[in-house]
This record gives sequence, structure tokens and C-alpha cells, in this order.
Amino acid sequence: MVRVGILGATGYAGAELVRLLSSHKHTEITMLASKSYAGQKMSEVYPSMVGVCDMVLEEADIDKAAEKCDVVFTALPHGVSHEVISALYAKGLKVIDLSGDFRYNDIKVYEEWYKVEHACPELLAESVYGLCELHRDEIKKARLIGNPGCYTTCSILGLAPLLAKGLVETKNIIIDAKSGVTGAGRGLAIDYHFCECTESMKAYKVATHRHTSEIEQELSLLAGEDIVLSFTPHLVPMKRGIFATEYANLKQPMEAEELIAIYKEFYKDEHFVRVYEKGLPESNHVAGSNFVDIGISVDKRLNRVIVVSAIDNLVKGAAGQAVQNMNIMFGFEEGEGLSHPGFYM
Amino acid sequence: MVRVGILGATGYAGAELVRLLSSHKHTEITMLASKSYAGQKMSEVYPSMVGVCDMVLEEADIDKAAEKCDVVFTALPHGVSHEVISALYAKGLKVIDLSGDFRYNDIKVYEEWYKVEHACPELLAESVYGLCELHRDEIKKARLIGNPGCYTTCSILGLAPLLAKGLVETKNIIIDAKSGVTGAGRGLAIDYHFCECTESMKAYKVATHRHTSEIEQELSLLAGEDIVLSFTPHLVPMKRGIFATEYANLKQPMEAEELIAIYKEFYKDEHFVRVYEKGLPESNHVAGSNFVDIGISVDKRLNRVIVVSAIDNLVKGAAGQAVQNMNIMFGFEEGEGLSHPGFYM
Amino acid sequence: MVRVGILGATGYAGAELVRLLSSHKHTEITMLASKSYAGQKMSEVYPSMVGVCDMVLEEADIDKAAEKCDVVFTALPHGVSHEVISALYAKGLKVIDLSGDFRYNDIKVYEEWYKVEHACPELLAESVYGLCELHRDEIKKARLIGNPGCYTTCSILGLAPLLAKGLVETKNIIIDAKSGVTGAGRGLAIDYHFCECTESMKAYKVATHRHTSEIEQELSLLAGEDIVLSFTPHLVPMKRGIFATEYANLKQPMEAEELIAIYKEFYKDEHFVRVYEKGLPESNHVAGSNFVDIGISVDKRLNRVIVVSAIDNLVKGAAGQAVQNMNIMFGFEEGEGLSHPGFYM
Amino acid sequence: MVRVGILGATGYAGAELVRLLSSHKHTEITMLASKSYAGQKMSEVYPSMVGVCDMVLEEADIDKAAEKCDVVFTALPHGVSHEVISALYAKGLKVIDLSGDFRYNDIKVYEEWYKVEHACPELLAESVYGLCELHRDEIKKARLIGNPGCYTTCSILGLAPLLAKGLVETKNIIIDAKSGVTGAGRGLAIDYHFCECTESMKAYKVATHRHTSEIEQELSLLAGEDIVLSFTPHLVPMKRGIFATEYANLKQPMEAEELIAIYKEFYKDEHFVRVYEKGLPESNHVAGSNFVDIGISVDKRLNRVIVVSAIDNLVKGAAGQAVQNMNIMFGFEEGEGLSHPGFYM
Repeated sequence: MVRVGILGATGYAGAELVRLLSSHKHTEITMLASKSYAGQKMSEVYPSMVGVCDMVLEEADIDKAAEKCDVVFTALPHGVSHEVISALYAKGLKVIDLSGDFRYNDIKVYEEWYKVEHACPELLAESVYGLCELHRDEIKKARLIGNPGCYTTCSILGLAPLLAKGLVETKNIIIDAKSGVTGAGRGLAIDYHFCECTESMKAYKVATHRHTSEIEQELSLLAGEDIVLSFTPHLVPMKRGIFATEYANLKQPMEAEELIAIYKEFYKDEHFVRVYEKGLPESNHVAGSNFVDIGISVDKRLNRVIVVSAIDNLVKGAAGQAVQNMNIMFGFEEGEGLSHPGFYM
Repeated sequence: MVRVGILGATGYAGAELVRLLSSHKHTEITMLASKSYAGQKMSEVYPSMVGVCDMVLEEADIDKAAEKCDVVFTALPHGVSHEVISALYAKGLKVIDLSGDFRYNDIKVYEEWYKVEHACPELLAESVYGLCELHRDEIKKARLIGNPGCYTTCSILGLAPLLAKGLVETKNIIIDAKSGVTGAGRGLAIDYHFCECTESMKAYKVATHRHTSEIEQELSLLAGEDIVLSFTPHLVPMKRGIFATEYANLKQPMEAEELIAIYKEFYKDEHFVRVYEKGLPESNHVAGSNFVDIGISVDKRLNRVIVVSAIDNLVKGAAGQAVQNMNIMFGFEEGEGLSHPGFYM
Repeated sequence: MVRVGILGATGYAGAELVRLLSSHKHTEITMLASKSYAGQKMSEVYPSMVGVCDMVLEEADIDKAAEKCDVVFTALPHGVSHEVISALYAKGLKVIDLSGDFRYNDIKVYEEWYKVEHACPELLAESVYGLCELHRDEIKKARLIGNPGCYTTCSILGLAPLLAKGLVETKNIIIDAKSGVTGAGRGLAIDYHFCECTESMKAYKVATHRHTSEIEQELSLLAGEDIVLSFTPHLVPMKRGIFATEYANLKQPMEAEELIAIYKEFYKDEHFVRVYEKGLPESNHVAGSNFVDIGISVDKRLNRVIVVSAIDNLVKGAAGQAVQNMNIMFGFEEGEGLSHPGFYM
Repeated sequence: MVRVGILGATGYAGAELVRLLSSHKHTEITMLASKSYAGQKMSEVYPSMVGVCDMVLEEADIDKAAEKCDVVFTALPHGVSHEVISALYAKGLKVIDLSGDFRYNDIKVYEEWYKVEHACPELLAESVYGLCELHRDEIKKARLIGNPGCYTTCSILGLAPLLAKGLVETKNIIIDAKSGVTGAGRGLAIDYHFCECTESMKAYKVATHRHTSEIEQELSLLAGEDIVLSFTPHLVPMKRGIFATEYANLKQPMEAEELIAIYKEFYKDEHFVRVYEKGLPESNHVAGSNFVDIGISVDKRLNRVIVVSAIDNLVKGAAGQAVQNMNIMFGFEEGEGLSHPGFYM
């Protein structure tokens, strides 16, 4: 049994990790750490877990973690995790970090978008961007994973075949993305008060959201040229889900069916990517599951492709992909603990 | 008192007309017609109206309407209203039609997008497109109004200043629009079952939604050239609201502040258009009201303007704008019956 | 024009007062005070009010209030308003207090349930319990109103005829009540985070909620004997609404029809009370309106009456009833500013 | 591997069975039948199941079922399943029926509440009421299970210890129950249209709901005397969940702590029953899981106990309990396929 620790266990991503790992065959949770709730049981913070995970939450402690764990998931605010992670890494542990800190190839991009200095740039060279479908081989050998953001996973996988195959112009790519409210985390703010959120939606951080840079990094790699694009996040009154609508101009006229075939081929070995032959993804097709659903339309009048992609932000967009990364790193079956369908209703 | 009839009174737009007119100083409802509920009271279908509007619903009858009404709002399915409207019009009544039938200047565009033959093309020459902020002078003199669609009102007003002033390229305009579920009407379909809708969102009719043609007609008029654009509708789990995110490439680099000033100037006499100096619109800023809220951002990296606009689809997107049209046609104060703020929470 | 001030203008009840008063014929808002937002415009806190109420929020100031206002609504936390209110009252103003502080006839009951000492017991003798349908004559002459709670208004009006007419046993009265989330106010707490609230419900303060004592006071008055009952509040994932299900044992077998007739007679002069002849109230029948809807069923097997009553907690349960009280105090038409139907959808 | 068939696979309970069985170690789904969707894949009806369950739906066929299945779950409308079930039973299959048809000991009670004649009363003698916590020994030996209703499971388990131990008066028991909308099934009706449902709640079938009789049957058995009680169902705007608030008068004064201890003892061997030592159940504590959560309060003033109990109506209230029954019947570990926690957010 692989021994697993989670730092930041009581945020939504941390709690989702506990939920998913509770049915994983090859792991055992040996440490749960939480700054805010240390001393309480996990099941006091999340009563849904009574009888499933009644472990007592601890203060994060590197030495203990090194002793008790083989792998640690860190679900801490970006900027905070630098020090912890370099210490864990130095102890020889495998680390899967859910913050933005280890997702970048170029430290300048990170520092520009996150407005902080990176405390351990040397580790950036070691860390692998954990988008499993695109970086599986590197992940296998990695000891430090920068687990991708929710918006980015959904957006990148929605656009990857178009750019990898050079089918679209690299100018005028627009991603209009919508997120459920768990994406904002469990912190308190008037914006996430039920009465301000329900029956309302909004755009936010227009043209300035950090995930833009992460998407650009990966799509540029695929395209072999620098891509700058529009990414607009929206908040929608539902708990879970990222729904991205992606626009790009086709270089040549193509039918939707051709593109669907190309996507199917591109993702033919990917269990978690479902390309629609007819119909379009909806958030409840993926809610609770690790699937990425992709639908493709073409506007013939404009010679423009419109892709819609959907994931559960807490699963494929966070905890599920983190488990998938762990499975790859440890040589487990990649879908272990992630094989269930979503809950739909 | 102007005597008002409503045909299709029990759909959501019809019911919203009754709600709004119940506090209008210069009107009296004299006829409510409903195919499905004739013989019942309005307040049996909508118990919220007990004590406010207990009128008995009738079968639509042209002669009676001509006798009892000065103006008739028709909220019938497109294609159905042709005959009724030409008969009402022939009787000398004023007619405000909430379907798509009288919104077009070019019958070919209508017939292409609606896939039906127009039964009274001669009336298209008489009818005025009732987007009050853009066609007020014509509305004053009109006897037949094609009341605009919800998506279109929100999208057109969001983009109008950019095109009227020639500030953006006319290629690569993209409108990513989101609607609350009342936009789909009161008919039954599995898609609108609470359990399929709540906690989920989706795109639909990608690149094929009829409102595209209505938006293109009006923006082309403003731009003085033919505009073809992408319009993508989405369904979001809330009752009311259209939220549109509009993308266009600026011809020259501009600051958001400059654009905001231009918008403010463009709409300076428009009570119902609120241009944000800071912050961005959210659906609950306009819910229940006739306001159109507009926020403007610029992505400097891309020299692209991103406008977000929000309305209540049942008010400014249907019943409210219909009342506003009536007010203009009859010379009432334009905001009569529409002066209340939305309900926010 | 009556000059109106609101202290605590930015809470949900305060904001609802502004919404309702914006269409009141005989009032003018002359002062809005807010501790948290003084210096900002009301419409910065609630952007829905831009163009409707752009007044600047002030710090509460008794002297200014006395100068600028004829009547003041106080929507402050209980316990806080004592001092303010006695000062306003001493200045000769009319005061309508939305807290629990002036709702009680017996100071001991207040102090027992609220666990605070009452700072101005002498004013309790002056204050009138502002449940309009039951205390109209006293309200007419009052200068200080203790505006009733939301749960209490709904529960008392649902049960009043049964107790006033002596139709039920006074033991075994049970009120199972459900509230929308605005009932909890605009303060931040994890319980009201969208993601914790939506798709979930709960009971809280079982057997200990303060409104119990307010309900008991009024029902005891009507019954002419001391009533002790069960009141259980629940939180339900919707913004607005109180829905109360009331159980009482009939002294003698009766048909629902008989009881409905008695209720209709009891409330025959009450515009805002709607007794159902068939069907049952639902929250969206009253949302946004000042109506109280009541439906009556009888379980013949048990000789038990089950009443369901519904209000909008922010309107009839707070701001609407406060306006109704003001209308009575100033001799305006009682429904002024409150005549619109709810929004249903 | 036990071979499983599901008749009525595309309703919400049927789909939930597929979801749960997809992670059951000892079963294999060999037949899915659906009247409305025969010929389509399960994953076309529920796209969430693409890649998890792509079986083609068939017309229900008894002979095929007998050949292909060891156990059949029937999730058909009550009254419809009689014939099918007696045929399946005659073929020697094990049958777990999710309708109301085989839940009763006394055919007269069934026929009175369901207003239909029972087509195979002889099977009622064979069938066992599948409330696992109360009838485990009989279930072990049964070949036909009447799987309990959602309201009833929640209500009975909430009250069972009180009646089994004779702690409360059997008069004046009141159950005020609230259901999420999946409880109404997937059929179309204006009542379940998103726009009519969201932001609203209501009571329905007051004093006449069929589950009353099922609750009375079981509680009478536990109490050893005939119990007649009030049961009031409500519809609440959430997808999943039954939340029941139960009231009963204590025979003698007792502290909540004493009652909690009695409940803990009563359910000490029950994995799926969680009795709260502090705090109270909320719907999201059980959503998606097979748990029954119970909280106990005492109103000392009235000597009345107030129990709140919560389940997921589709899991412990339908599909989950059906799987639990199957596990007991086949001698599997009782929690197999049901061990995951709920999804909370």
C-alpha cells in the first residue's frame, strides 16, 4: 500500500482527494494536515465522511510526513507551498502539488502572472506539468508534479488536437470559460454567499486570469510557436464544473465530422477523454467523474471551429487528475480509484 | 386609459407583461387570451396574481380584440402570429409582436433562418424593429412593432457603440451568450426538468441560432457594412437573465477608459442603459428590471475589447421592452411601469 | 412627502426597504445609514440600484436623522438598536424597528430568549407589535413599532383563526418552518457559502429559536390562554421565502371546507391574506410580494388540521410589513408601494 | 459473478442502480430494459455513462431475463410490475422490486392506499419488506423483496428506537418530510420544470401520501400496537435528498443525551446508520451515499423529542438499499459497492 499524505486536506480539493482515495485499492491515507482545523477529525469538518475517514487532522510537519508518507498531495495556496514542497522533495518524497507554483517551464512567466518571486526555481526544472494526456511519459519519471488548473485542463484538452495538427490560425483564439463555485474555494467572501451567487452569473478577471498563461504555455508547445489568446472566466451558479467554449479560425474549410475524426484519433488511447460524435457535452455528463467531454461544431459561414469541453473542476480539474498522476507515477492502472461514472443527477 | 390585450398571456413573456402592466398608470388590461387555459382565470394559472389580476382567459378573437383594445401584445410562437397580426393590424390596432416574425428588414433572411414562408411580407415594410434605444423615432410612428429577442437586445446594445463608431474590425466578432431557463419558455421538455437543468450548463444550437441573423442585421446597419459573426448560446441554471460576452479586435490600441467614455456618450440619454465605470455587470444587477448593464475591458496584449452585457430576458429581453415600445408609441413617459429596480436577491 | 430614513440600509432588509420605497408615492428617502459602507453610494453596494437610488450612505447620526426624517426604519442587530431607538423616539420621530427588541409585551420573555438585558424597558410599554392584520388599531396610534419576525408573521397568521375561534387544542401545536437563505442575513459564514448551501437543507436551533416566544405571545393573546408550542426552523436552498407547516388537533371533527370558510371570514378585510379554496400555497406564489398565502387540509383519520402558509421573508416578513406599518401610521392607503404581484419566475 | 438485470433502467432509480453497480465487485449487468428507450444505448440516455456502461437497452422479456440473470431489479411504476414480477419469480429468479407493490403485509392496506387491486396477492406472503436494518434475517432467506420507499426509509429509521423501546406516546406522532426533486421521477410535468421548481417549495398530498401507510405498518410492528400518524411531504429545490423532521411526545422527561445513547445502542451494528452526538444532519452529509444520518433534540418545555433524519433518496431511499438487499440475499459483504462517502459539495 502506498502511504499518502494530504496537506490542505480541508479545502474542497483536499476533501475531494479524501473522497476519491477512499475507494483506491493501493493507497492508504496516513496523514491529513490542515492549518485551520488541526486537532479536529476530518469527519467533523466534513460530516459526510463519518465512518469513512475519521482521521485526526494535524499541523503540517515535514519530518512526520517524510516518515509516514510515500507521496504527498499539497493543496495549499500558491506561494505558500514553495518551502514545504522543497523540504518534502529533499526528503525524497513524491509530491503532487495542486497550486500554480510548479506548473511553469519559464519562471518569468510565473512571476509575471503570479506577482510573487519563486522561492525554489531550481525545482521548476525537476517538476513536470501533470496534464496526464499530454505528459504521461515525463510524469512516469517525475518526483514533483505541478498538477494543472481546472480551467486549463479543460481548455487545453479542448484545443490540443487543433494546434498539434496545425489546423487553425494561432491568432484569434478565444476561450470563454465558465466555472462552478467550488472553483473559488471554501474561503468566505460576499461573492460566494448563497444569496449573491444563486440565480446570477458574472465574468471576472477578464484578460487577467492566471490560467491564461498556463494555457498559452501548453498550447504554444503543441503548436510550436508562441500563442497569445483571450481567456475569459465566468462564475455560474452551480457547485461543480468547468465548461469552456473555444473559438478558432480554421486554416482551410473543414466539416465538423472531419474534425471529430481527428479528435477521436488524437485521443484514441485516452480513457478519460470522450469525443462526441453527436450531441454536445453538458456539465452533468461529467460531474463527479474524471472524464473530459469534448464536442465540436463548425460555423461554415465563418470557417470557424467552436469546441465545447467540460470537466468536473474538483475531479479532472484537481483531485482526480492528481490521483491519475499518482497512478502513473507509481505504475498503477491509470484509472484506479477513478473508474466510476459521474452522478449526473 | 389605453386598453391593452395580450395574446399568449400564460407563457412566461405574457405573464411578465401582466406583472409589469399591473403597475402601469395609463393602461388597463381588457383582454387576456390563452389557447391552453381559456376559461380559467389568469390567477389560477399564476396563483401569484390572485387579487392582482383575476381576469378570465379567453380564446383569441380578432373582432373582440378590435372592440376591446387599443393595443395588443402578441406573445405567440413564431409562424403562428402572422395571420392574427395582419388581421389585428387591418382593424387599425397597434400591435407589439414578441415573436421573430416582424423583426426583419429582409424577408429572405427571415425565411432562411426560420425555415418558414412569411405569410404577410407586405407588413414587414410597415413593421419597425423595436429596439428602443436604436429605433425610437421610427417606433413613435409605428403601428406594428417586431419586439426584439432577448439574446439580441443584450448583444446588440453591448456592441453598438463599437460598430457605430467604427472602432473595431468587423471580422472576428464573437458573442458568447448565456441564458437563464425562462428563455426556453414554459413548454415541457426533459432538458428543462429541474433535475437535468440544475447544477449543469450547456451550449446549444451552436452556429445555427436564429438570433444570430437578428444581431447581424442590426450591427450591419450600424456599421454600414455586412457583418457576419459567431453567436453561441448557452443554458445556465438560473431562471432569468441573458449574459453576453462579446469579443472584437480594436482597429487601434485603446484604453478601456476611452471606450467607457465613448459608451457613456453614446448612451447618455438612455435611462435603461448603464455603462460601468468600474466593476462589471452581474445577472442579479438587472434581474427583474428593464436595465441593460454594460462593462468594458481591454486585453492590451491582443488589442481586443471584451464587453460584457446583462439584461433580464423577460423584462428588457421581452415584456419590459414591449412596454417601453408601447410607452413610446403612445407618448407616455418612456419608463412608465418600468421604473422599479430589480430584485437583486 | 414623508421623509424616510433607514438605519442599516445595506443589509437585505434595508435594501429591500429601498427597493419597495422607490415606488412609493408619498415618501422620499432622505437618509441611508450603514456602519460598514458609510461614504459609499447605496448603488455601489447594490449595483441593481444605479439610477434608482444613488444616495451616499452615512454613519447613523441621531441629530441628523431628527432633522431630516419623519420616520426611521431601523434594521440593526437586536440589542444594538436600543440606544439609537430611544434617542430617535425622544426626538419625536416615528420609528419602525425590524429587530426583536420591541416586539414583546413582557420584558422577561425578551430577556430570557435573547439573553440580554433590555436597555429601555420603558419604551416596551409604548411600542406596538406591528403585525398589521392583528394590531391595526394600535398601530394607527403608535410611534414605535416592533416589526414582527419573518417566521412569526407566517406562523401566526397561519394559525390565528384556529386559536381566536377556539377550534383546536392548545397542546400539541407544532410549527415546522422552512426559510430561504436571505433569512440568515448578509453576514459571512461557512453555512451560507453557496457550495455548502445549495442542494442541501437542514434544521437548526431546534426547540430554541427566539421566534418561538414571539409566536407564543401572539397566539396566547388570541387564545386567551398560555400556549407553549414546538417551532422548528429549517434552512432551504432558495433565496427568499418562509414556508410554515402547522399542525393542531381539532377539538371536534371538521371538514377542510368549513375551516376554509372560517379563515375566509376571519381575513375578509385583509388584502394581503389569501386563503386558498383549492390547491396549496407555494413559495413562488408570494416571492417578491407582500402577500400571505394560506392553505388548509384536514387529516380526518386523526382529526388534525394541517395549515400551510407562505410569505416572502424580506417583504411581508420584514420590509414590506414595515412599509405597511408606515402606511397605517401615516394614514396612507395600506397597500401603497406594495400593490405589485410577486415575480413567480 | 452474479448476473444482474434491471427493468426500468432509464428512470432515476434505474440509472442510479447502474451507477452503483458499476463499482460492485461481485456483479455483472447482463440486461437493461427500458420501455421508452429500447434500442438505444444506456449511455445515449445518460451520456455520463459513456465508457462505463454502453449496453443497449432492451424491451423487458421474461424468458431472456430468466436466461441471462440471477437477480432482477424492477424499477417500474407500481401496478405495472405485478405481472412481470410474478413471472420472474416463477422462473426462480431473485427479484428486488422498487415499486410499492410488495411492501405490505396486509393487502387491504395496499389496495386502500394505492386504489388498485393487487394482481398477485399470493406473492405478498413471500415478499419481504427490504428495510435492511430492521428485516435482515428475513431478507437473507427471501427471493422477493419489496424495496422500501424513500420517505419511509428515512422516517422509519428516524423513529424506530423510540417505538421499539416504548419511549413515546403513540398518539401525536408527526413526520414533516422534505424531498429533493428526483423523488418525483423523470417524467415531465409543469411542477418539475426548472423555472417553477427552483427558488420555490411546497407541500403536496397532505394527509394522503401513500408512504404514510408504509411508515405506519413498520412502526406499528415495532410498537406492538396500531399507529396512525401525520405524514406531510414537501418538495424542496434540490436534486437529491429526503430530510424528515419527526415529532413525538416522550412518556417521561428525558435528556437528549439519554436518547442519543439509546439510539447508538439500537443501531450499534449498523454501518449505514450514523447517530449524531453533536450537531445535526444536513442533506449534503448523505448526498450520494447510502448513509442514514440521525440527530436528536428534546424540547424540555414540552417533553417532546424532535428527531431529524436524512438520506439520499436515490441511494438509501432506492438504489442503494436495493443493492444492500442484494448483498444480504447473496451473502456478500453488506456494504459492497456502497462504501464510498457522499459527494458533499
